[in-house]
Amino acid sequence: MELAKSKVLRSKLAGQRKDSAKKGKSSVRKSQPVSEQRLKKMICSIGFRASPFAEAKALKLDSKRLAERLGGKGAGLVEMTRLGLPVPPAINLSTELCQIYLLRGSLPSSVMTWTMKAIQGMEKNLNREFGSDTRPLLVSVRSGAPISMPGMMDTILNLGLNTKIVEALSGESVDQARFWWDCYRRFIVAFAEVVLKERRDPFERKLERAKNLERVIEDSKLSAESLKDLSLEYLSMLGSKFPQDPGGQLKRAIEAVFQSWNTERALHYRQLNRIPEHWGTAVNIQAMVFGNRNERSATGVVFTRNPSTGEKKLYGEYLINAQGEDVVAGIRTPESIEGLSKRLPKAAKELHSILKKLEGQYAEVQDVEFTIDDGRLFILQTRTAKRTAAAAVKHAIQFVSEKKLRPEEALFRLSFDQVKQMLHPSLQPTKESPLGKGLPASPGAVSGKLAFDAEAAVQMNRAEQRVILVRKETSPEDIVGMSASEGILTATGGMTSHAAVVGRGMGKSCVVGCQSLQIDESRRELRIGDVVLREGDVVTLNGSTGEFYRGELPTLATSWSREAEKYFGWADRFARMQVLTNADTPVQCQTALELGAKGIGLCRTEHMFFEPSRLRSFRRMILTEDQATRLEEIQTLRAHQTRDFIEIFRVMNSRSVCVRLLDPPLHEFLPKLEDEAELRVLSEDLGMSPFDLKRRLQSLEESNPMLGHRGCRLGISFPEVYQMQVLALVGALATHLANGGRLECKIMLPLIVAAPELDYLLSRLKRLALSEVPQKFHSKLMKSIKWGSMIELPRACMVAGDLAKDLDFVSFGTNDLTQTGLGISRDDSHKFMSVYLEKGLFPAEPFEQLDQEGIGQLIRFAVEALRKANPKIEIGVCGEHAGDPSSIEFFEQLGFDTISCSPYRVPVARLAAARAVLQTPVKSKLRRTAKKSSKKGS
Amino acid sequence: MELAKSKVLRSKLAGQRKDSAKKGKSSVRKSQPVSEQRLKKMICSIGFRASPFAEAKALKLDSKRLAERLGGKGAGLVEMTRLGLPVPPAINLSTELCQIYLLRGSLPSSVMTWTMKAIQGMEKNLNREFGSDTRPLLVSVRSGAPISMPGMMDTILNLGLNTKIVEALSGESVDQARFWWDCYRRFIVAFAEVVLKERRDPFERKLERAKNLERVIEDSKLSAESLKDLSLEYLSMLGSKFPQDPGGQLKRAIEAVFQSWNTERALHYRQLNRIPEHWGTAVNIQAMVFGNRNERSATGVVFTRNPSTGEKKLYGEYLINAQGEDVVAGIRTPESIEGLSKRLPKAAKELHSILKKLEGQYAEVQDVEFTIDDGRLFILQTRTAKRTAAAAVKHAIQFVSEKKLRPEEALFRLSFDQVKQMLHPSLQPTKESPLGKGLPASPGAVSGKLAFDAEAAVQMNRAEQRVILVRKETSPEDIVGMSASEGILTATGGMTSHAAVVGRGMGKSCVVGCQSLQIDESRRELRIGDVVLREGDVVTLNGSTGEFYRGELPTLATSWSREAEKYFGWADRFARMQVLTNADTPVQCQTALELGAKGIGLCRTEHMFFEPSRLRSFRRMILTEDQATRLEEIQTLRAHQTRDFIEIFRVMNSRSVCVRLLDPPLHEFLPKLEDEAELRVLSEDLGMSPFDLKRRLQSLEESNPMLGHRGCRLGISFPEVYQMQVLALVGALATHLANGGRLECKIMLPLIVAAPELDYLLSRLKRLALSEVPQKFHSKLMKSIKWGSMIELPRACMVAGDLAKDLDFVSFGTNDLTQTGLGISRDDSHKFMSVYLEKGLFPAEPFEQLDQEGIGQLIRFAVEALRKANPKIEIGVCGEHAGDPSSIEFFEQLGFDTISCSPYRVPVARLAAARAVLQTPVKSKLRRTAKKSSKKGS
Repeated sequence: MELAKSKVLRSKLAGQRKDSAKKGKSSVRKSQPVSEQRLKKMICSIGFRASPFAEAKALKLDSKRLAERLGGKGAGLVEMTRLGLPVPPAINLSTELCQIYLLRGSLPSSVMTWTMKAIQGMEKNLNREFGSDTRPLLVSVRSGAPISMPGMMDTILNLGLNTKIVEALSGESVDQARFWWDCYRRFIVAFAEVVLKERRDPFERKLERAKNLERVIEDSKLSAESLKDLSLEYLSMLGSKFPQDPGGQLKRAIEAVFQSWNTERALHYRQLNRIPEHWGTAVNIQAMVFGNRNERSATGVVFTRNPSTGEKKLYGEYLINAQGEDVVAGIRTPESIEGLSKRLPKAAKELHSILKKLEGQYAEVQDVEFTIDDGRLFILQTRTAKRTAAAAVKHAIQFVSEKKLRPEEALFRLSFDQVKQMLHPSLQPTKESPLGKGLPASPGAVSGKLAFDAEAAVQMNRAEQRVILVRKETSPEDIVGMSASEGILTATGGMTSHAAVVGRGMGKSCVVGCQSLQIDESRRELRIGDVVLREGDVVTLNGSTGEFYRGELPTLATSWSREAEKYFGWADRFARMQVLTNADTPVQCQTALELGAKGIGLCRTEHMFFEPSRLRSFRRMILTEDQATRLEEIQTLRAHQTRDFIEIFRVMNSRSVCVRLLDPPLHEFLPKLEDEAELRVLSEDLGMSPFDLKRRLQSLEESNPMLGHRGCRLGISFPEVYQMQVLALVGALATHLANGGRLECKIMLPLIVAAPELDYLLSRLKRLALSEVPQKFHSKLMKSIKWGSMIELPRACMVAGDLAKDLDFVSFGTNDLTQTGLGISRDDSHKFMSVYLEKGLFPAEPFEQLDQEGIGQLIRFAVEALRKANPKIEIGVCGEHAGDPSSIEFFEQLGFDTISCSPYRVPVARLAAARAVLQTPVKSKLRRTAKKSSKKGS
Repeated sequence: MELAKSKVLRSKLAGQRKDSAKKGKSSVRKSQPVSEQRLKKMICSIGFRASPFAEAKALKLDSKRLAERLGGKGAGLVEMTRLGLPVPPAINLSTELCQIYLLRGSLPSSVMTWTMKAIQGMEKNLNREFGSDTRPLLVSVRSGAPISMPGMMDTILNLGLNTKIVEALSGESVDQARFWWDCYRRFIVAFAEVVLKERRDPFERKLERAKNLERVIEDSKLSAESLKDLSLEYLSMLGSKFPQDPGGQLKRAIEAVFQSWNTERALHYRQLNRIPEHWGTAVNIQAMVFGNRNERSATGVVFTRNPSTGEKKLYGEYLINAQGEDVVAGIRTPESIEGLSKRLPKAAKELHSILKKLEGQYAEVQDVEFTIDDGRLFILQTRTAKRTAAAAVKHAIQFVSEKKLRPEEALFRLSFDQVKQMLHPSLQPTKESPLGKGLPASPGAVSGKLAFDAEAAVQMNRAEQRVILVRKETSPEDIVGMSASEGILTATGGMTSHAAVVGRGMGKSCVVGCQSLQIDESRRELRIGDVVLREGDVVTLNGSTGEFYRGELPTLATSWSREAEKYFGWADRFARMQVLTNADTPVQCQTALELGAKGIGLCRTEHMFFEPSRLRSFRRMILTEDQATRLEEIQTLRAHQTRDFIEIFRVMNSRSVCVRLLDPPLHEFLPKLEDEAELRVLSEDLGMSPFDLKRRLQSLEESNPMLGHRGCRLGISFPEVYQMQVLALVGALATHLANGGRLECKIMLPLIVAAPELDYLLSRLKRLALSEVPQKFHSKLMKSIKWGSMIELPRACMVAGDLAKDLDFVSFGTNDLTQTGLGISRDDSHKFMSVYLEKGLFPAEPFEQLDQEGIGQLIRFAVEALRKANPKIEIGVCGEHAGDPSSIEFFEQLGFDTISCSPYRVPVARLAAARAVLQTPVKSKLRRTAKKSSKKGS
């Protein structure tokens, strides 16, 4: 178990690192000169020795430090060399060098000298020579950031070729000629695109034309002649911009990789994934091996288990006689990995054994790139697989049952984004026939309007439309558009294509490789058979089956799998805080229960009044000047509410239900002044002149409703509403108990700021509650009712101790607390929030992630006072933050008893609550007793 | 000086008592039985000994405790017996007994037994007998709360008479008959009104008829016969409700006094004056002396110095052959006190000497009630005089120059309400002839609409109209109407009439006794000569001259008297905090300087953009999409602002000026969406389609503008405005300095909540400021500029330490801090605030008086962090609370450096700042050094 232990520690540390690094800054300063000694340390060799550089596998660095310094890709290569796997030798330029480059805008002059010195080591190791026309050393130049950013950074293969070399080499045989010109034309295009920032299209068009001329479909079938012509055509297009000197090529390529850290799409990806700007990327210069050498060569990508379904079975694709980019870019549709054993059995067998080793090493499903060069297998990259949530859960359960992980370690194997993804809706069974079918690359059923490029997707999204991005194939330029869309549909590419990998990562529904799809981007239309769809037409994707439909189809909330229940059951074992839900209707309650909520932490009653007949009663109650009418309407509403609560109690059965008495200002229930028609109806109904009605409505208008006449203020100045609600609750509870039910009914007062306010309401409402039931039931009833208060305004935090004494519980309303504490209306904040986040003036969106420094300090102040004044008081939170992992960790540190979030966030909260216990040092917690963790831990 | 010292201590204690008592509760509990021993202690004798009761002058109680227990009136009587003055003997039932009565709803059964036992002592002392028809002991029963509540509580004179006794006594002579029937009819009416709650009018009508029949004008001229008839008529009106048994009369009267504590008008007065509800009133049962016995008898009221002008000269009124109520009620117009020496020289001489003694005892101007009974002088009451502010200031200066007070003691001799009153406007010199002239009872020039009764005044006030209440005479029922009015005008009554006393107390402008005024209340009109005015017509009162005018006349801000300057100069000597002002225009600056402000603590720049041509530029700057137009308008605005600041700097000369950069949201400067006409103009001006303009305006609308896109958030997302403002400030400052001026220019950023936000703005704006001036002036300019931040949001308080390091100063914006901390929009709070105050859920209006418990704790938290992070930082406040005395005391305790309030609150702030130093124990202050008080104290 020692190994596993170190693994869970590693995962935890990785999490922490991400946080600490986010707050930290680069260690590099612009003005500071860098010594040669230090520069030399930024270069290391992987898989061979090259004095004076360190060989990376000898570095005394754990995975975390290794990835920070060498990037994830570099670190993976190092770990593989440590395992003795066949990895082509490589040179790594560290992330720190990237920071230096980006700060200065140029490479320190000696970097290329040192790099060429390392290349010499590689030449010796391979008995090849960089720039030689007989035994040339070719390299790939690839980026590698500390955290995997798939498809985001640029890669150049076959570097080291020039026309003179290729011509010399291609004299050997026709096969050699075909091979070298193929490598060369690929290199030229990659260099043009990545380094010279040329558009790819003109090159692609020439390639298409060559294929048409030779009447072949696949690139690999092109003749040596054609490939040579292509290469020369490409060169003439670029002229002197293309350096023939391999050293120059290498320098330009290194710079281009470093620069690519700051491309718009990389920035966007980092923002999306909260990756710190200052990290930088490493450069890996790796000796080339060739999947495109001949028919005994291949290149492929393989997952050690299925990343989509979770099946315990190799999953991957390869292409014979191809280079890596061909698989990933989705240009040719590759073959399933299962076929490899037949095509290249020896290499396939070796691959299987290596994959097992790698999975064992990381105790995690691996995503591996390999190349077979003339029958010989090389592993180019290994990384933890990006998977669908369902797969990740299944894998975790498999690993635990295989004794490779303990449950508390498995809880760190699912990202919170994946948990959210698990809750994607699925299509309701339908008789519609699908328009078409592609590969089910990322699950979830979504509907939206078609957008034919990223820009359109972004614009439609801004106009608050749901978008399906449709592309022939996606490329990194589409990232922004993908993140603005609900789903992605492509015509080409396989399960590991760009669209599939990025779509899964983003948790977007994704259907790829639908070959019957004909896309005309310029005309903004697509064809499938006879059907033509245009931009803005609505389609529905089923990412779980690969089918897609015309129009919008009804969806079902995800059915929660048995595996998920098992996995989240582990979370519940380790969590100390109870995860409750914010639910207002029986249906919501049911959903939350299915997703594992332990009770209702916030049942808002306001929504219960919006059904038309109730709304009418409510309005009449508010507006009438006739006491008899008012009393009558109150009785009507009470009957409605009693039924509401009976039904909710029934669904919740013996779990606790916390009901917040009416919170919003009265004008939310009244028609708008502009709505003449509704005013007329209402004024007739009330027998009130339109003029009087308008005047009354005007008198209820507020300039800042957030800070207005609402919550307990209404309960005091307009006592009938709270009285009615408490009577309805007591009535429903009595019925529930009489039917043999058990239940804890919590009654919660909103917007409290002062002890006298609380006393005033509590004393009256408690008395009223008792007045409704026969004396002999008093004690039974009162035992089932708990009284509490929201703490949602800064003053309530400052006087929390005074509030605590007569309360059974409090619940922090962190939404309102954030709004008032920061003086930011959530409804209005979009006008400046994006600027604030962009400029780093706020570390995170404060309504998504609790502002621990400011609002958190208010909460801490309150919690300390509450505990001091009333050690038995139950402390909870029912704002949006109760579904946010980093906020949940904070609540755990403060020893909260409950967290209550919306039904669909319950799974995230369950997992986060468990992880918080496993991550938080006991001494930092304000909790009174570590209830569960102490009896169940380790 | 020992005496004076004890006096200032007394004043201070009185102030503190008021506070502590306000927070405290009654010591009486409903359920707890009261022992006879304890009951007995609630009764004491004054001016005679009556075992087993304590004689009050022997009680070891200081003035404060005495007034708490016996009420102010009782305490005054005791102090006079201690001085050996001629006071009719009295029995006092303590305030505690009142609390018991009000809690139980009835008197403990033995109270009357004990009271009658005390009456026996009084009988012995006076050799008279309660209920005797030969030597009857008559008493007055008067209320007396711990703090004087003029006219609020009910009084009954001549108690102990019945028909049998009066008939027996009236046999002696015609004079005796006239006298006794006069006493009797007065008693019956008072008893009917106060105890039996009968309306007074029917009794008055019968009195009028009797006078008409006898063709006399004054009551005192009525014949014995008439008075007898009147008495018997009164009795038949009341029937058996009027008790003939003197003991029964006494019991009912005691209960009525206790009950009167809870009349609506008393409740209202207490609310108005913040007198705690639980105090209760004492009852004084005092042996009657008779000012209505004959022509050698009189009754009167005298002030030891003029309470209106401050002149050092007796001031008062008396009536020959009258009882006390005749003077105060204003029914007969009394004669000036100066005439008394001629009418009753011996009594007058004795009175003069007693008045001198009393003033010496209290070191304060006294308001004394006296009665001369057949040539013999009795003092019935003494209390500190209610005065106009001008008089109070003059008296304070007189007492200091007479060496009766030290300046630091004199600073406690003016109430804050009086300071406000000093700032009442006066009439501009006018050529209008007045409609009429009465007595100048309370100063100040005010205009308003006529209201003919209290109810009308209240209603008009609710409709936000300014009201002048006009009454024949006012009575306690009018209190609510008086407080709703700007000024009061009466037809009868003198300078000590109800209207005059209460009007002065409330600081209302007041003209009384205008005999040419004919009021017809039922027709809601008044006549003066030919002129008829109706309800709603506008008049202007000059309370300083007694004149009043038709229509609204222009007024002048008060000219600050030389005495005031001297008095407030003392305040400045003792104050430690600097009093600054919130002023936005040169005129406001000038006013504030005249009232003693030491600089500008808050110069809001938003008002500077509302002048039409500037507003146009501002709007164009916000809305235009043309960069050139925007730059042009910014230049225009910059030129305007530069001139604004040059002018303000000129007025402020070498004092400090703190400018807050733009705070409100942009939509405040734009037309409303409904304002079609203005939209049309604007859209033409901008060359923008009305549709686009509307859409742009809509995009700027906010659901909670208080919490919206404003303050530094604008400065960040819309940088041109702050840049323009800083450039204008630097330009103006450079001009000012170049002209040889000196000045500290403070630049303040509003709505800061986070250190990165502050850093972002400060670094950019500081750089910008320097960019504008030649290098060689940098250090001079930068020395003159201080940079600061508002602290006006709860989060800013929680992270204040982080904000402090780069700031020269901070200013707490307690308005916004109160709004956000309590979650209460000031604009909307009226909907529930009155309910909250009424029910005692908030101790005070939190926008008037700082909520020390909640918001104050946030501030304390911030101040501690600020001082710790930057010991040199200057801390101030610029909310409304900076003009509120209790809040100012709190700021002193926290060691604030500056307080900044609106110009007209500067005098209150100066006085409060001084008192706060004198009252605050040094150890409770967070201040770093007690700058001034240490070198000037004692």
